[in-house]
Amino acid sequence: MKKVFQGKIFSIWQWEQELYDGSKATFEKASRSDAVRVIAPMPDKTILFVQDEQPDREPVLGLPGGQVDEGESAETAARREFLEETGYEAQRIAPLFSYEPPGRVNFNIHFFIARDLKKIHEPQQSAGEKIELRFFTFDEFLALGQSEELRDLRLRIMLLEAQLDPNKKDILYKMLYE
Amino acid sequence: MKKVFQGKIFSIWQWEQELYDGSKATFEKASRSDAVRVIAPMPDKTILFVQDEQPDREPVLGLPGGQVDEGESAETAARREFLEETGYEAQRIAPLFSYEPPGRVNFNIHFFIARDLKKIHEPQQSAGEKIELRFFTFDEFLALGQSEELRDLRLRIMLLEAQLDPNKKDILYKMLYE
Repeated sequence: MKKVFQGKIFSIWQWEQELYDGSKATFEKASRSDAVRVIAPMPDKTILFVQDEQPDREPVLGLPGGQVDEGESAETAARREFLEETGYEAQRIAPLFSYEPPGRVNFNIHFFIARDLKKIHEPQQSAGEKIELRFFTFDEFLALGQSEELRDLRLRIMLLEAQLDPNKKDILYKMLYE
Repeated sequence: MKKVFQGKIFSIWQWEQELYDGSKATFEKASRSDAVRVIAPMPDKTILFVQDEQPDREPVLGLPGGQVDEGESAETAARREFLEETGYEAQRIAPLFSYEPPGRVNFNIHFFIARDLKKIHEPQQSAGEKIELRFFTFDEFLALGQSEELRDLRLRIMLLEAQLDPNKKDILYKMLYE
């Protein structure tokens, strides 16, 4: 596999692929840095989301998180982005699940759960991002499964599955609060 | 916006973006051709899926479909890909919904519903693709909402929402069979 382009976010890779009849063709994939997202239950049991506006797009609702920097572990990135965006330090953080969105982009999203939050500063308003914190009760959190406002499709699936299956709902509840 | 790379599938675009404090930074996006997917109810009411194997990846389960070619309309691409992959000609085809998967790739997926199918040939086995047809009853179709095997996350959300809401289920049923 050969890197044919390196941009600020994306790199493009091409390779010769043998097909089923023995002939060959050039295949192409993109890759970009992995992302991290953090589910953080607050002391009052609400779940912390961010309404994130960037200069090139409308505000979107999502979990706190961002990109993993070069050479950084996903866990370190999760702690760093969570603190930057929300102003809270996660004294404990644990991996929950990871997935690769479908499509020809090599790119994983790693979910974490953050506990024992300690307020360090106000949410950071950088030149490139405007952030507002939003808080959802457990039932409101589940109802985000039906919300087009929530961008992460895999998270919506997790929430819809918890609505459909009392066992999954129970597991999710315990994971968040115990 | 300036195109800085054109590959076989992806192109990469960069532009100078003014930030909230008036400073500027280089932003980057990728784009690729749109995709089409076709929901096709058979005369026995089963829904047609394809198990699609390509030389660079494991078989995946999905709706018949593929990429929109340059200069082609989404509807023409849907008819063409559906015929190629399944061997059926859709005598009627109607747009259902479209969505853009989250992430920094400009790329839309257009869903269609195909009716009055006419068998033209066997599913095409090209050098670059091995295809097997699979058929799901309406209840099995709904149950694919919980299946990690099904790659399209937006389709899984539609199926889970239909399981949760009798009205949505009813609308989906009518859309498929009436």
